[in-house]
Amino acid sequence: MSAESVEPARCLPGRFVVLEGIDGCGKSSQLEALAAWLPGSGLLPPGAKVITTREPGGTPLGQALRQLLLHPPGDAAPGTTAELLLYAADRAQHVEQRIRPALGAGHWVLSDRFTGSTAAYQGHGRGLSLPLIHQLEAIATGGLSADLTLWLDLPLAESLRRRGHRPADRIESAGEAFLQQVADGFATEAAARGWRRIDAQQPLAAVTSACTAALIQAFGGAGHRDH
Amino acid sequence: MSAESVEPARCLPGRFVVLEGIDGCGKSSQLEALAAWLPGSGLLPPGAKVITTREPGGTPLGQALRQLLLHPPGDAAPGTTAELLLYAADRAQHVEQRIRPALGAGHWVLSDRFTGSTAAYQGHGRGLSLPLIHQLEAIATGGLSADLTLWLDLPLAESLRRRGHRPADRIESAGEAFLQQVADGFATEAAARGWRRIDAQQPLAAVTSACTAALIQAFGGAGHRDH
Repeated sequence: MSAESVEPARCLPGRFVVLEGIDGCGKSSQLEALAAWLPGSGLLPPGAKVITTREPGGTPLGQALRQLLLHPPGDAAPGTTAELLLYAADRAQHVEQRIRPALGAGHWVLSDRFTGSTAAYQGHGRGLSLPLIHQLEAIATGGLSADLTLWLDLPLAESLRRRGHRPADRIESAGEAFLQQVADGFATEAAARGWRRIDAQQPLAAVTSACTAALIQAFGGAGHRDH
Repeated sequence: MSAESVEPARCLPGRFVVLEGIDGCGKSSQLEALAAWLPGSGLLPPGAKVITTREPGGTPLGQALRQLLLHPPGDAAPGTTAELLLYAADRAQHVEQRIRPALGAGHWVLSDRFTGSTAAYQGHGRGLSLPLIHQLEAIATGGLSADLTLWLDLPLAESLRRRGHRPADRIESAGEAFLQQVADGFATEAAARGWRRIDAQQPLAAVTSACTAALIQAFGGAGHRDH
């Protein structure tokens, strides 16, 4: 997998921005901050809305799958292959029902996690075959990729400190060796897929500034093309 | 996809028998009849149990997925790709948690539906790519295939007559043109995969006799090898 293509930007009028990183890196806070900043940024064409979403759980079906993935009843925890396929099902529904229609209507979609998280958690973390993961990625997305992926890079120790005593979900509780492989996996995928690295150890406002700067750099020219 | 291999029989001591066919063809009745007949048939080695199961829903996770597939809440109905991936997730969990361990312990597994149903419903019915379906089949099964598949062949008109006024699930209610493509798909898959055709229009007891004859023919020699 080479650097992410900008195919969606070429064939769909909207823009698709993804935030990736380990738990606690600040993805959801930054998603809200970017959604608040974008309308006044001058980047959005007239009529374009900002839509925030997440994986797993960006659709009604996805919310049911999120529950099975993160908080399954006792004996229903998915095995590694079933887990991979459930994330792919969540993504297929998300792309078909929500992301592609929004991009087609010219809106901007900001997603908390996308294909990179599957490569990091199920590939680098669980040790499933990366070519297999890329096959499933192609099936689930139908070839749709992000225009820009921001990788909020945070050391695992800081992620664990931030979680504190909040109860871990099924993935978070898989152990520190697994989580370190995931963290290293994000670094590997960031290099392979051409993600923009953001230092997530900075204060929140500084992280937001770095994110907005990345959006301006990526879309400051082309984003205005419809004005 | 050529005729089904007997790889599981070679590498796992148990036997895996699948019943395929459209709704109303009598799979579940025949599954029960075969499970009752097998222990006295002389086919089972000492200590071997008969395990009956089904797809979707052969595991606790699978039961939750079955609900989402067949009776989803209003806005959570899966799109065609998500549907395909959910059936694959159900199957991966079924193979990993239930079928492979049972075959490994020398038991006989009888399943109401397996990979052939995905080819018939999602491939021939929904029109999804058959090579894609074969890719997912390989991922979900890890290469495990049935030792014997019995195709209970029933005309669609008879299936609809048998359903009568019973409420249709989401798949059954997809319309008669779709169901006819599925029925034709079963015939195509039966030829391609080397399934044993059973005339399911006969009285129940005659269908059972045809099924037991097929089992004796398939396993009458090899099935006794451990005695």
